[in-house]
Amino acid sequence: MQTINQGLEEELFNYLVHSIEDTPYYQLLGVEVRLLASGSAELEVEVSQQHTNPLGAVHGGLYMSLADAAMGNAIRSLGIKAVTVDCTTSMIAAASIGEVIKAQGSLEKVGKNLIFASARVTAGEKILASSRGTFYRVGLIEINHGS
Amino acid sequence: MQTINQGLEEELFNYLVHSIEDTPYYQLLGVEVRLLASGSAELEVEVSQQHTNPLGAVHGGLYMSLADAAMGNAIRSLGIKAVTVDCTTSMIAAASIGEVIKAQGSLEKVGKNLIFASARVTAGEKILASSRGTFYRVGLIEINHGS
Amino acid sequence: MQTINQGLEEELFNYLVHSIEDTPYYQLLGVEVRLLASGSAELEVEVSQQHTNPLGAVHGGLYMSLADAAMGNAIRSLGIKAVTVDCTTSMIAAASIGEVIKAQGSLEKVGKNLIFASARVTAGEKILASSRGTFYRVGLIEINHGS
Amino acid sequence: MQTINQGLEEELFNYLVHSIEDTPYYQLLGVEVRLLASGSAELEVEVSQQHTNPLGAVHGGLYMSLADAAMGNAIRSLGIKAVTVDCTTSMIAAASIGEVIKAQGSLEKVGKNLIFASARVTAGEKILASSRGTFYRVGLIEINHGS
Repeated sequence: MQTINQGLEEELFNYLVHSIEDTPYYQLLGVEVRLLASGSAELEVEVSQQHTNPLGAVHGGLYMSLADAAMGNAIRSLGIKAVTVDCTTSMIAAASIGEVIKAQGSLEKVGKNLIFASARVTAGEKILASSRGTFYRVGLIEINHGS
Repeated sequence: MQTINQGLEEELFNYLVHSIEDTPYYQLLGVEVRLLASGSAELEVEVSQQHTNPLGAVHGGLYMSLADAAMGNAIRSLGIKAVTVDCTTSMIAAASIGEVIKAQGSLEKVGKNLIFASARVTAGEKILASSRGTFYRVGLIEINHGS
Repeated sequence: MQTINQGLEEELFNYLVHSIEDTPYYQLLGVEVRLLASGSAELEVEVSQQHTNPLGAVHGGLYMSLADAAMGNAIRSLGIKAVTVDCTTSMIAAASIGEVIKAQGSLEKVGKNLIFASARVTAGEKILASSRGTFYRVGLIEINHGS
Repeated sequence: MQTINQGLEEELFNYLVHSIEDTPYYQLLGVEVRLLASGSAELEVEVSQQHTNPLGAVHGGLYMSLADAAMGNAIRSLGIKAVTVDCTTSMIAAASIGEVIKAQGSLEKVGKNLIFASARVTAGEKILASSRGTFYRVGLIEINHGS
């Protein structure tokens, strides 16, 4: 997937795109990054059989994982490293196998220690899930300039 | 893994154990079932490299997925089919690669339509995450007696 | 306070305004209604000494009560009666004594049984709290035409 | 109400009891303290007409306020000052006018900066609401020995 850079510095953008591509949990679930902007991130997953629960529907864990990841990368787009403290998700509608679902993460407040974020998971116009997350800042992203 | 049956009818127990083994999302994450009792379920995952986030730590989505699954199976142990409505999780401590983490789901109220549940994710004595979930009942589990 | 009617039928609007004025818990906290629209409501409280906690700051219960009320009245603006199932609130910043704080409630999905809402509590431009709520529909508002 | 001291130092216990009695928001809602122990607190309210919402039922804000207060005082019983960051509540059943409802707050993890707590609101044997809260530590309680 070609990722859209909506105003990030080239170096941070490239770092984040590669870091997301290399993240094992994202690879496991099939998460890709569609867009990065300052304080905002859009991630996608193409829903498949492997994401289904005992009822044959998409497992809620996929929506929660994707929403958490979208909020986390919205924070990382500011060059900040943080960990999730609280994440709450309402499951509003179900996706179908084969649909591409998108999570858009954005930030409500970037405090000295705590960062408040929200995310919405959609398939086309349909809202699938709505999340809020609170994160704790642990440092700044350092981009290594390899020799 | 040998699953402990703490008082479920043999037929429901066997149905649930096989259904959990066959669930694609559980296979993807490595979720196994350790114990089923009436209104309670314990699931496990051995944490590995594939569960890690961009910081190299276990992704919060794993704890949330596991907690949601433990609550869902606590409900299924009563023969009830339900879908997650709301799930909220606090991330209290981080697991290490190689640890076996366990989620214990239990029920607070089984209403006509809504079911209120909670789950705790632990590694040994350490609490990693604490969740609450609200579920909506969609029917009863029907066990097919194949010919 | 003069309440703004943004497109509700006169009869429902008048009913809701009086019902809000007559609601004991709103009177206790000092909640007033500023605006009603279809699927949206704005409520206000002038923060005073009586809302403070043991630290002398505004008690979180005020933000949560106001957010819940704003979501509930956003639902009532559609002529629907519902009860709160889940409500989650992040406390982002603190209000000061004497400030007027406003909660704006809006709806994300109005389902057959479940309704998903959100609310933001602000003081001027400052976000104080952000909430999500899930509600269960219990019936329709019936307006009595007294003799 | 006579408050039970379950093992707190006399000085801290007395300080907390008076501080709770003097807290304006608690007075407004009718909150009283029944028990304080190390890391745990029980608060009570006698539900009355003044706590009711437009449907004539107890407003969810009362349960949320009481749960938040019980968690906050469970923290204060350790001599710690903290503010609420996130609070999530499931409304499980409704109280009746005239009932005494009790919130018991307890702690799951007391970290360097973040404290994770839970509370359950009950009327007799009946669970009315179940809450989780995350708090941020802001200092220690200092007991002034007035002249």
